[in-house]
Amino acid sequence: MTRNLDAYRALEARFHRLGAIGGVVSVLNWDWSTVMPAGGAAARAEQLAQLKLLHHEMLTEAAVEDQLAAAESAETGLDPWQRANLAEMRRASIHATALEPRLVEALSRAASGTEGLWREARPAADFARVLPALAEMLALVREAAAAKAEKLGVLPYEALLDEFEPDGRVAEIDRVFAELDGFLPDLRETVLARQARLPAARLPQGPFPPAAQKALGERLMTAVGFDFTHGRLDESLHPFSGGVPDDVRITTRYDATDFTRSLMGVLHETGHALYERGLPPAWRYQPVGRARGMTIHESQSLLMEMQACRSPGFLGFLAPQLIAAFGADPAFAPENLARLYGRVQPGFIRVDADEVCYPSHVILRYRLERAMIEDQLRPADLPGAWNDGMAALLGIRPPSDREGCLQDIHWFDGAWGYFPTYTLGAIAAAQLFEAACRARPEIPDAIARGDFAPLLGWLRANVHALGSSLSTDGILRHATGRPLDPTIFKAHLERRYLG
Amino acid sequence: MTRNLDAYRALEARFHRLGAIGGVVSVLNWDWSTVMPAGGAAARAEQLAQLKLLHHEMLTEAAVEDQLAAAESAETGLDPWQRANLAEMRRASIHATALEPRLVEALSRAASGTEGLWREARPAADFARVLPALAEMLALVREAAAAKAEKLGVLPYEALLDEFEPDGRVAEIDRVFAELDGFLPDLRETVLARQARLPAARLPQGPFPPAAQKALGERLMTAVGFDFTHGRLDESLHPFSGGVPDDVRITTRYDATDFTRSLMGVLHETGHALYERGLPPAWRYQPVGRARGMTIHESQSLLMEMQACRSPGFLGFLAPQLIAAFGADPAFAPENLARLYGRVQPGFIRVDADEVCYPSHVILRYRLERAMIEDQLRPADLPGAWNDGMAALLGIRPPSDREGCLQDIHWFDGAWGYFPTYTLGAIAAAQLFEAACRARPEIPDAIARGDFAPLLGWLRANVHALGSSLSTDGILRHATGRPLDPTIFKAHLERRYLG
Repeated sequence: MTRNLDAYRALEARFHRLGAIGGVVSVLNWDWSTVMPAGGAAARAEQLAQLKLLHHEMLTEAAVEDQLAAAESAETGLDPWQRANLAEMRRASIHATALEPRLVEALSRAASGTEGLWREARPAADFARVLPALAEMLALVREAAAAKAEKLGVLPYEALLDEFEPDGRVAEIDRVFAELDGFLPDLRETVLARQARLPAARLPQGPFPPAAQKALGERLMTAVGFDFTHGRLDESLHPFSGGVPDDVRITTRYDATDFTRSLMGVLHETGHALYERGLPPAWRYQPVGRARGMTIHESQSLLMEMQACRSPGFLGFLAPQLIAAFGADPAFAPENLARLYGRVQPGFIRVDADEVCYPSHVILRYRLERAMIEDQLRPADLPGAWNDGMAALLGIRPPSDREGCLQDIHWFDGAWGYFPTYTLGAIAAAQLFEAACRARPEIPDAIARGDFAPLLGWLRANVHALGSSLSTDGILRHATGRPLDPTIFKAHLERRYLG
Repeated sequence: MTRNLDAYRALEARFHRLGAIGGVVSVLNWDWSTVMPAGGAAARAEQLAQLKLLHHEMLTEAAVEDQLAAAESAETGLDPWQRANLAEMRRASIHATALEPRLVEALSRAASGTEGLWREARPAADFARVLPALAEMLALVREAAAAKAEKLGVLPYEALLDEFEPDGRVAEIDRVFAELDGFLPDLRETVLARQARLPAARLPQGPFPPAAQKALGERLMTAVGFDFTHGRLDESLHPFSGGVPDDVRITTRYDATDFTRSLMGVLHETGHALYERGLPPAWRYQPVGRARGMTIHESQSLLMEMQACRSPGFLGFLAPQLIAAFGADPAFAPENLARLYGRVQPGFIRVDADEVCYPSHVILRYRLERAMIEDQLRPADLPGAWNDGMAALLGIRPPSDREGCLQDIHWFDGAWGYFPTYTLGAIAAAQLFEAACRARPEIPDAIARGDFAPLLGWLRANVHALGSSLSTDGILRHATGRPLDPTIFKAHLERRYLG
């Protein structure tokens, strides 16, 4: 028993270092996306490749398997957090031992190289420029998926999904997405018809200087609960949340003619950041102390952006802030802000999509990436399949690949199997926000005063502080009393867009 | 023979990763000093400690000693660069194996913690706040110095110096500093008396907005040869040059009432950056591809700042740039700039010192740090010893420890044994610049046109591209035909300040 406990302690020491190195990788990625000069890319790719190889070696040393086996024996006497920690260690070990170092290194270099090409190809709408690199990366990703699938006993796509959404299964995703497919097209048409009868939203008249947008964003982040002694707001081409829990870095991009997207983008990333910041400090560098997965992560960003900050109460709080930031504009009236931020309109760009259309963007990507992983779609055929899919799902066809299959970074930097979590997260967000308001009925009024403490307090206690001690499903059951349930999301959409 | 060559190749692979990790540490340090929020310090310290421990483990594994011994055998057939690389590997191994992991970790944490306290103590002029941490760090540094001294067969102070100035010896430093001591006090008095008879320099009238200072700095950096696709200019409390050769990051700080210090500071750091950028690309991650040491490094920054950019020719080129940046001011006349930048005035702050007074600042620190390492001076007695030393060397006594022993970061972040390299570098700078102008007589006229290509070309070929393939002395002999020679520095001072 002591020997087994010693084995567990040795694993904790090893994973402590792995956790710190994971934080280093996150800082290097932030730097790359925000401040690094272009000529630093090769050196940065080398640094990241070496750290990933090292990470892989630390997880695949023979001692790890022995220690895991010893610690997993029934008599170790671990407490529930330690047991959950051990289970995550096992998961990490399976992911690592499934891949040879050669493949780890090739994947790291392919991600760095393909992302670099994508950064050139996207503005030029030149899919051909990045196609060879993408095809090469897909071959590596499929090789990795097959190897992990065998070890995990799941489908290759699920093996990729497992990195972002542990224990995610395509049967469950298919069930949830089918449910959405059952009501979303009709809902969308009804909303569009209804909106056509209502007065159009008045557009705010710019310009909106980026410096003023940034200052407003920082004020709102502070109101929501972001602590700038433990984080930053910066600019990047593709907004993201990164860094480490004690130093959370979020980014946005500014359009001087339209502040509305960046503003909600900042609140979205703030939701991610607050989740990271609220993870259990006692387990800071251990696997169980990390975010549960991207479904819960996206639920936190979307709860903040879609549930809390597009609510009429928050828009009423926002209106005078907009006047203070940019000067008076009739478009800043709360009821107009509600029309602006409640506008449903099929469009090409996922990150700009409204919450009624957004799931269609995700369903498209989910189908396409599964088809590519299952060798049913060749990368060369991606642009056509994408455009056909957009036509079928939203009735519009992108004018170029810039508004089509080149718009997102994910496939180009190696994040295959990530997309479904956006919509699973949107559904979880509706469910969690409803539960929060049920448990603490003062939340909506507080938000209308710009006071997020009641909401954040509930999220900290019922979601953030759990880390990875429960599964995604376990967190939802713990916090809301039931598993993931699209009917609450449906009710939310009907209330907001048809109410 | 093949086996021995295999051993060398295995060492190259290991040191490649160590080199990449060294670059990661440099990026993390840049981030800490420029953009990291204060609350991220503990997490960053943990990341750095883990990387330093890892670095130490990679150098102290039993295989390393076996591989070094095999590769060092006479029959390996290495070429001169490989042999020099191997010698640097041996040096790194000695430094690492001398210390137990416990001490490596303790030193890393002491450096992070003490630096944090220093950042609070310095503005408050509160030496007592940082004294306990400093004393604890000194104890660790002395322990490390003793352990390394035994392995290297040198004095404890020399063992510390060896990290910054490989093979540096106190006998040589004492000889050079004694030579300076033989002429500097008289020279200084003569210069001060001469200046008192000349018209005073006219001070530029501000304000000088930091944004305009930054834009000017970037223009001058570009003129000097800095490539912004491979580097950045940012702000930090304590200016430095960091990053990696393909992504060199320099910093400065701006004073809106006085641009003169930041401007020369930027040119100084640019000299460091150009050295890093010019290191041999074929040896990028290997020890022999790194900068030779801090004497050569400081020679490159001081050659740029003191030799090239305070020359009358450059000041003539600078004058219209200042007018373009800040508007016309009689103080921008070239002859007044020469008076401004040629002013000799004993002061409290090393980084603001003129080149006649600067060596006294260094000699003071060298004496004090040697005394502390040799247990002849207790940290508690440092403020008094500092102030007495300033009075003796420059005839002035700091009003508080902020202008005294708290002004520099070095002792507080663990850089003991660094200071002498500033003055050794100043001497080397004079010697290298003289040799460059002898070899390429067009250099001064080119600098007067803002064309640094001839100078940079000579430095690239004769200093930068050598990496660590030769010793400091070897580089100086190769580039100038003789070892370090203070008489050239003396001649330079006499020409500029008494000529």
